[in-house]
Amino acid sequence: MAGAAPTRVLMGVNESTIKGYPHASISSRKAFEWTLDKIVRSNTSGFKLLFLHVQVPDEDGFDDMDSIYASPEDFKSLKRRDQARGAHLLEFFVERCHAIGVACEAWIKKGDPKEVICHEVKRLQPDLLVVGCRGLGPFQRVFVGTVSEFCVKHAECPVITIKRSAEETPEDPVDD
Amino acid sequence: MAGAAPTRVLMGVNESTIKGYPHASISSRKAFEWTLDKIVRSNTSGFKLLFLHVQVPDEDGFDDMDSIYASPEDFKSLKRRDQARGAHLLEFFVERCHAIGVACEAWIKKGDPKEVICHEVKRLQPDLLVVGCRGLGPFQRVFVGTVSEFCVKHAECPVITIKRSAEETPEDPVDD
Repeated sequence: MAGAAPTRVLMGVNESTIKGYPHASISSRKAFEWTLDKIVRSNTSGFKLLFLHVQVPDEDGFDDMDSIYASPEDFKSLKRRDQARGAHLLEFFVERCHAIGVACEAWIKKGDPKEVICHEVKRLQPDLLVVGCRGLGPFQRVFVGTVSEFCVKHAECPVITIKRSAEETPEDPVDD
Repeated sequence: MAGAAPTRVLMGVNESTIKGYPHASISSRKAFEWTLDKIVRSNTSGFKLLFLHVQVPDEDGFDDMDSIYASPEDFKSLKRRDQARGAHLLEFFVERCHAIGVACEAWIKKGDPKEVICHEVKRLQPDLLVVGCRGLGPFQRVFVGTVSEFCVKHAECPVITIKRSAEETPEDPVDD
């Protein structure tokens, strides 16, 4: 088993709706830290993390975002452009992986997050898809939908859903 | 991280609906083997697997099934009784864990599987709940319900759902 190919974990990550600058959402950070702590643990060579950030076109207006970032250096030239928002988000995850020695890749796509995530699962065939979720009640879910519910049903690989805990939930639970 | 407490993984397992004798269902076996292969990998000391088998009272008629089985030996005396069905199921998982050196525990509860699983999550606070599922389409789901969908929404810990693949699906996909 030690020589086997690493377990490829695709993580859908998004920006916080709370802060002005593109920090990772509470549920994305939670899902990421949990995965390192409880799944990867000390076996850093056994896993490769794939970070996918899906931007909704009308919100962000990017044209050219199918780039791949595989190291902190890859982000420098991109930062000069408006694409810096998404790159900044992904940099958070890539920097953290490099610091602890976990292989990773990160990229940005545009589209409907739930559709794009399931499409990327089909394309990349990861071993596992990790999606954070807000843990909303049924009433709140009616209005915002949830990416995680869709992915659990439709993604063609095992899916782990990680809810925020009560103490991580912001004043308005629809925020993240 | 190497000295940290192991990641405690609760797995809901059930019997096959196909064979007469209590073999593990296709989706339970798939979820188990996948967890060993893709999550535990070579880090056998980093994980503890907790196997929960929930029997529906009217189907099985057991009275006394809150026992804990922690090693293959624990099963011997129980085999003399009718409870052997559930014990045989759990023995499959416990034997396999012992063979590869992964710590485990297994027990039987009776009740509604989805309710009991979520109750045991609350009681034991595992790091992760693993549930296999048949991967049924929406039409089939209407008639059989799914334990996994309920657990994703209600269990108070991260949940991983693992669908059977197309080639593992029996002739009648409601079978498992």
